[in-house]
Amino acid sequence: MTEATLADIQAETKNTIDAYLTNYIQRLPEHAIDLKEAMQYALLVGGKRMRPLLHRITAETLGISYLDSLPVAAAIECIHAYSLVHDDLPAMDDDDLRRGQATCHIKYDEATAILAGDALQTLAFEIIADTSSKQLSHETKVKLITCIAKASGYSGMCGGQAIDLAATNQRISLERLTQLHQLKTGALLTACVETATLMTPNIAECDVANFLTYAQSIGLAFQVQDDILDVTASSEVLGKPSGSDQKANKSTYPALLGLQAAREQLQNYHAEALQALDRLPYNTQLLRQFADLMLNRTH
Amino acid sequence: MTEATLADIQAETKNTIDAYLTNYIQRLPEHAIDLKEAMQYALLVGGKRMRPLLHRITAETLGISYLDSLPVAAAIECIHAYSLVHDDLPAMDDDDLRRGQATCHIKYDEATAILAGDALQTLAFEIIADTSSKQLSHETKVKLITCIAKASGYSGMCGGQAIDLAATNQRISLERLTQLHQLKTGALLTACVETATLMTPNIAECDVANFLTYAQSIGLAFQVQDDILDVTASSEVLGKPSGSDQKANKSTYPALLGLQAAREQLQNYHAEALQALDRLPYNTQLLRQFADLMLNRTH
Repeated sequence: MTEATLADIQAETKNTIDAYLTNYIQRLPEHAIDLKEAMQYALLVGGKRMRPLLHRITAETLGISYLDSLPVAAAIECIHAYSLVHDDLPAMDDDDLRRGQATCHIKYDEATAILAGDALQTLAFEIIADTSSKQLSHETKVKLITCIAKASGYSGMCGGQAIDLAATNQRISLERLTQLHQLKTGALLTACVETATLMTPNIAECDVANFLTYAQSIGLAFQVQDDILDVTASSEVLGKPSGSDQKANKSTYPALLGLQAAREQLQNYHAEALQALDRLPYNTQLLRQFADLMLNRTH
Repeated sequence: MTEATLADIQAETKNTIDAYLTNYIQRLPEHAIDLKEAMQYALLVGGKRMRPLLHRITAETLGISYLDSLPVAAAIECIHAYSLVHDDLPAMDDDDLRRGQATCHIKYDEATAILAGDALQTLAFEIIADTSSKQLSHETKVKLITCIAKASGYSGMCGGQAIDLAATNQRISLERLTQLHQLKTGALLTACVETATLMTPNIAECDVANFLTYAQSIGLAFQVQDDILDVTASSEVLGKPSGSDQKANKSTYPALLGLQAAREQLQNYHAEALQALDRLPYNTQLLRQFADLMLNRTH
């Protein structure tokens, strides 16, 4: 299994997720065409599909076919897309650009963007509950919905975004910053992995724990790298204005620790992730490559 | 069964729903206290709990205990509460008052209100998926989540709100106005009834159809009455500025039909609802009273 293979899987995941979501949106009736277009725009403009990829490769590590994991991957991407649309709103982070393109409220308007985010969240739960996939039992669907809801609501992503907003213009502790990211981005990344374990009958509890440790560590690594890139990369590479954290006066790992110590922290999280994989009785090659991808990404 | 009885059930439903939701919110961790408070505020300030009441009495009509229907009623109320918070936002209807109190974004701020709405939507699905109620099988939970998701997303409430926004400052046809309300308010009211039928094993298809006709008719009656009250009632009675539809230049039944014809339309929907009940082999006394309550409410 070479590096190129993960890149191939990533490209194919992007294609299939985009096709799945396009098909889902296009089948919706036409009664509110602007909203439908805004949902499609929010879902399909750019995006590396890192969450679907992480869910897919965890599922494949556990012997679950991509056909079975596709609806779950698509649902998680809907949650992610809705959160970006709402985070970009003027009352939140007030961003005009996302993935190098106009944000949803710039392309459409604020009201449509709010509704598109709302409807994409709903769609996530609908996709899982309503999928005809024979491999997902009702019990598994209920567990998946519980997992994704907890990861994306107050106890996860929304709670993290609230901490983030409250922390703007304040110097917060490293502990609080870590909690912020564990909730804001870590919870949904962890759900990408946890959902795959929930789809695996008779998986050992200690294996689940190691999968979760892996996910939590790469979740934090992802965020430290995000903060570092915001300081070091150009706007062109990022597809959004670089230095935006500093401009928004946000606490970041480089701001709290210094750039060098932030880089060391990133290495530590990366090492923790790999150690968790070492304890698993599965071929974790792809997950290892995914962790490397987190560490080495440039945007 | 007298009128007072429905009022008693309504009062008790309000108490139990409020207690259930308060308990749910208070058990959440404290990491984002403003968001937690805003969620509680949005859920618990005022509100007549008409949707939980409708779900409950439909469930009781079908022999389902209130204990079993309570999580479903609470979940639907979360969806309703989230929709009010988002509809009141400056970019949407820009309302400062709701149920006689400051709206969520006035009491807190806009970002917190957006997140509170988002997290309340998530909570709705979490409540159903995660309830330990023994009477709700996994299969039933999946059906309930599908039903509520379809009623509240693009194909229901969000789609209706998008039509509503697009219709502001435009004269739309009666057909389009009816579609608007069928989606914006009718879909979730119908879900209150449909969820109860989904919890009923072996219910006859024709009975489900009559329950849905009842729900759709009272949903439209509710909205026609809402439009009429906006013209005829005082702000004090409504708990929000009266005449706000006219001020916002919205198409309404009285505006399209005239007040007298709008009142006749209300009577027609009411009659349709009662006729659907007549065709049901259940004691539909409470549902009949609920329809009367829709017709006779003054706020």
